[in-house]
Amino acid sequence: MNTLRKRTALLLEGNGEYTKAGHILDIFLITLIMINVIAIVLESIVNLAQTYTYEFLMLEIVSVSIFAIEYGLRLWSCVDRTEYKSMATSNFKRRIKFIFSPLALIDLLAILPTLLMFFIAFDLRFLRVFRLLRVFKLTRYSRAMQLLLQSFRDESSSLMAAFFIMAVVLILASCGIYLIEHDIQPDKFGSIPAAMWWAMATLTTVGYGDVVPVTPLGRFFGGVITLLSMGMVAIPTGLLASSFSEQLRKRRLHFNDAVHERLHNGKLDNEQIEHLETLRIKLGLNKQEANKIIKEQLNARTQYMYCRHCGARQD
Amino acid sequence: MNTLRKRTALLLEGNGEYTKAGHILDIFLITLIMINVIAIVLESIVNLAQTYTYEFLMLEIVSVSIFAIEYGLRLWSCVDRTEYKSMATSNFKRRIKFIFSPLALIDLLAILPTLLMFFIAFDLRFLRVFRLLRVFKLTRYSRAMQLLLQSFRDESSSLMAAFFIMAVVLILASCGIYLIEHDIQPDKFGSIPAAMWWAMATLTTVGYGDVVPVTPLGRFFGGVITLLSMGMVAIPTGLLASSFSEQLRKRRLHFNDAVHERLHNGKLDNEQIEHLETLRIKLGLNKQEANKIIKEQLNARTQYMYCRHCGARQD
Amino acid sequence: MNTLRKRTALLLEGNGEYTKAGHILDIFLITLIMINVIAIVLESIVNLAQTYTYEFLMLEIVSVSIFAIEYGLRLWSCVDRTEYKSMATSNFKRRIKFIFSPLALIDLLAILPTLLMFFIAFDLRFLRVFRLLRVFKLTRYSRAMQLLLQSFRDESSSLMAAFFIMAVVLILASCGIYLIEHDIQPDKFGSIPAAMWWAMATLTTVGYGDVVPVTPLGRFFGGVITLLSMGMVAIPTGLLASSFSEQLRKRRLHFNDAVHERLHNGKLDNEQIEHLETLRIKLGLNKQEANKIIKEQLNARTQYMYCRHCGARQD
Amino acid sequence: MNTLRKRTALLLEGNGEYTKAGHILDIFLITLIMINVIAIVLESIVNLAQTYTYEFLMLEIVSVSIFAIEYGLRLWSCVDRTEYKSMATSNFKRRIKFIFSPLALIDLLAILPTLLMFFIAFDLRFLRVFRLLRVFKLTRYSRAMQLLLQSFRDESSSLMAAFFIMAVVLILASCGIYLIEHDIQPDKFGSIPAAMWWAMATLTTVGYGDVVPVTPLGRFFGGVITLLSMGMVAIPTGLLASSFSEQLRKRRLHFNDAVHERLHNGKLDNEQIEHLETLRIKLGLNKQEANKIIKEQLNARTQYMYCRHCGARQD
Repeated sequence: MNTLRKRTALLLEGNGEYTKAGHILDIFLITLIMINVIAIVLESIVNLAQTYTYEFLMLEIVSVSIFAIEYGLRLWSCVDRTEYKSMATSNFKRRIKFIFSPLALIDLLAILPTLLMFFIAFDLRFLRVFRLLRVFKLTRYSRAMQLLLQSFRDESSSLMAAFFIMAVVLILASCGIYLIEHDIQPDKFGSIPAAMWWAMATLTTVGYGDVVPVTPLGRFFGGVITLLSMGMVAIPTGLLASSFSEQLRKRRLHFNDAVHERLHNGKLDNEQIEHLETLRIKLGLNKQEANKIIKEQLNARTQYMYCRHCGARQD
Repeated sequence: MNTLRKRTALLLEGNGEYTKAGHILDIFLITLIMINVIAIVLESIVNLAQTYTYEFLMLEIVSVSIFAIEYGLRLWSCVDRTEYKSMATSNFKRRIKFIFSPLALIDLLAILPTLLMFFIAFDLRFLRVFRLLRVFKLTRYSRAMQLLLQSFRDESSSLMAAFFIMAVVLILASCGIYLIEHDIQPDKFGSIPAAMWWAMATLTTVGYGDVVPVTPLGRFFGGVITLLSMGMVAIPTGLLASSFSEQLRKRRLHFNDAVHERLHNGKLDNEQIEHLETLRIKLGLNKQEANKIIKEQLNARTQYMYCRHCGARQD
Repeated sequence: MNTLRKRTALLLEGNGEYTKAGHILDIFLITLIMINVIAIVLESIVNLAQTYTYEFLMLEIVSVSIFAIEYGLRLWSCVDRTEYKSMATSNFKRRIKFIFSPLALIDLLAILPTLLMFFIAFDLRFLRVFRLLRVFKLTRYSRAMQLLLQSFRDESSSLMAAFFIMAVVLILASCGIYLIEHDIQPDKFGSIPAAMWWAMATLTTVGYGDVVPVTPLGRFFGGVITLLSMGMVAIPTGLLASSFSEQLRKRRLHFNDAVHERLHNGKLDNEQIEHLETLRIKLGLNKQEANKIIKEQLNARTQYMYCRHCGARQD
Repeated sequence: MNTLRKRTALLLEGNGEYTKAGHILDIFLITLIMINVIAIVLESIVNLAQTYTYEFLMLEIVSVSIFAIEYGLRLWSCVDRTEYKSMATSNFKRRIKFIFSPLALIDLLAILPTLLMFFIAFDLRFLRVFRLLRVFKLTRYSRAMQLLLQSFRDESSSLMAAFFIMAVVLILASCGIYLIEHDIQPDKFGSIPAAMWWAMATLTTVGYGDVVPVTPLGRFFGGVITLLSMGMVAIPTGLLASSFSEQLRKRRLHFNDAVHERLHNGKLDNEQIEHLETLRIKLGLNKQEANKIIKEQLNARTQYMYCRHCGARQD
């Protein structure tokens, strides 16, 4: 029983040291999630929903069943996952902890709406759309996205500050255009919240054009705001560019250092290669990049007999 | 009396070495400012203003009273602030200097419109909107925003140059479209200033679409300008990205150096940790980042017996 | 015969060590491709197509003949190209390999539609536009573009993740606006796929404005989505900025190292200069840049008698 | 006479070692140029042009006279400018060379239209707008802008490649939308060049919305193109961000090295400070930045007795 649980854990966890079966399972689940999302989107077209009512229902029942089984298996086997195994508590507490982890909550949310619809008499229409949250289940499978989200978290204080500047400019812009234009276009700039619709579309450079100032003064003010919009867009872009650059540098440096250490005697044995491979996946570097770093390090070993910085002999 | 003043200064100053009470006060004031801003925005909706006249008035009176008290206390206690204490002048001159500091001016601006409305018979409507400048009071509380604004100041000459390029392109674009289209659409491109409205919306990629060229030549010229708009947007974004990157690097390097120095004997004592904490807040680094740097430095101490650059033995 | 084939290969290959004749041939072919693309674009204007039917046909026949001859020569001479010469297989296998290389496929695609039109009775109109794929023939001639595409490939996993985030936000945005507005504007937000048109235009900051929310709640939701659009645009820009920065750094470092090695005795002989030149073209560095690096290295040689890092004497 | 010419040259040249009078003259000329540009823009408003005909004419005459005198003085004194003085040719050849330098050509262009209008009977209206080229005269005065333009030149091959990718995508996008929509909206997508108007507005994220696809397939294709637009905008932004970053780093490194060299004995004498000041202006670094670098270098001198890299003693 325990061996089966362990195997299930390994099959479902599969981060880094994929077993082949786990890989196939992942691809199957990703495909299923995507089909679900597409189906829910298409179901909103009245014609299609009426013609294929039965097919949509069948897909939903089958999908939810599979997702429910998946959730059950994850809940059952989670106690054998590496991150929980090390905790010195009972299996029950481990499972409680697992249930409230972000990824498990997403899994629960993916099946809950439909389960509710079956067991409780409830307004179907409203809940149906919530099934779309199923799309978040894909988060689990993308290493690169997790690293991307990491960048957002690293820069959170700067991004909050950028958001705050945006909010201040937004308030002043809508207040200004309200003062200038609310007498001429009372239907469009009748209040500051109404004027915010224009200010938002302008400051983000979306520029719908359904609401625009028409007086010369309003257009002058609007022109100033369009100029400010360039700054507004530049701030988050600049922050993320800087953050991505920093992250990339750090991860490569990290891998580089790891290779440097392991290359001490000039060669990599199998165990070391496996260790580097795990690190590579954790850092989200692609194979070519890792190869290049290792090759460079090997070259550095053989090419430079003397320190590239001070000319001292290198042993 | 003096002790009370000193405590008030510490309570209100609260930069870095927050006392708990100061922290609560800050949160209270931030909340109050936000409520005020939202109230002023909502007050511009005629329905709401008529229904809740009394409530809006009460909120205004209470808020201005609190802000006035805050301003008074800041003015009174400013002589005990660290940056003024070191100045070898009378308390009066310190207070004069404080009154004309940017943050104090903002504080004054936040209460002035309402005070004027109460004491002088004046046009209410116009001033009411100026109360929105209260939003700037929030500047005081965001370290990250001050660092963001620092980037703008650092790049001011480059941004001015970018702005100048923008102005030149703007003038030439509106001049060109005016020449091409002012005969066909005299209501839209009747003069160069009128044509600027189109040029501005295009060059900032806002693109309202309320004014567009219609002749083939005008559209060809417009197409060239849309292409230029990509460059126009790219310049400030690129400048800020480069500047943020540089700032981040510098601040981390600064912290890194500070840690390096203090780690000379391999450990950090309490006083050193407190010093680093103050520096961390001043530099706007988050705790994780600081931790990472310290950990890296500690690793560097223990991991590398030999210089990573020239292989020389490290003591 | 073999000498002729070798010469043809050298003439057509011309990557790095351009012969003068090869250079002229390249310019001729680039010009021809451009004339072709312009002609195909202009041919879509009904007036022009009717007036100049004969001229367009002549240009097409002449161009396709030249491109066919070019393709034939490339196919014939490919066995003498440096990258194929080293392969230890028969000429036939080399040619098969060449046919399925991306650039050769593009060359084939450029002549195929017209050839089909002549030899098989087929719907002319539809194929005519496919001749535009001819524009891809230009890929061969731009080193910088190949390096640009390299950046996209290097960041492919991050860009895929960015695309995935975009897709998730897109689905949620269109789903949200569908829920809010599909009763009020059934013609515009009648289904989630229809709502995607608005969501796409908004999230990419294009903002056509042909479809916009009109209810207060819809506008509030729309405002939130416009704010998110800034993040959506910032991610790929940030990724590419970071990637370009990294690539530039790497290529210059690579060249720098190559110069450093070759400058060991303080001078560059002719052979070394030629080697560096080939490397420079391969790395896509311009001449000025290369010059600057060499000059800096020479200066480093003469200026710094002591290591800039540790002060040790440099031989 | 020669002394006067030398003084005039110094007065007009004024790059770096500004004399006070030269500085005032610069400000006067900048103001005059700006007034001119504003006047020409305002003159396009029919009402204003008719009311203030005389004033506009007077301003034009006065301005052109001043610019003509300026041009004459520059031409006369150019032989004493540092960059021409070193040339071993006659004054005449120096002046010829000066006349064809970009800045001198701009100066000539600024006065030519009006001169032509006075001396030759010519169509006035058309030439009047060309006086706007006068705005380019400002180029001379902005160091930062010259550095910005340098970035464009450095990245010219990459930007050309980006432009080429843009052109290819543009052609394919307009070709695609033409195929899909030209039957349904023949007035808007009637030919590929017409469809380019939509493709251009979309790919640059301007998005006027005057021309949009209406069929489901057209909207799907349009959605794909809006997604591509993010990449199109990201490429030049990324390139410039990377280039600015590189330039900034290089210039600071350059200044840093210069300071490092001059600080060899731990102090800066007056001559060295002046030399660094000239370099600072040439590199376009602001004073604070330069100060920081010098301070850091001084700190590095006193703080680190041991190499920060390998712990070796530093003399």
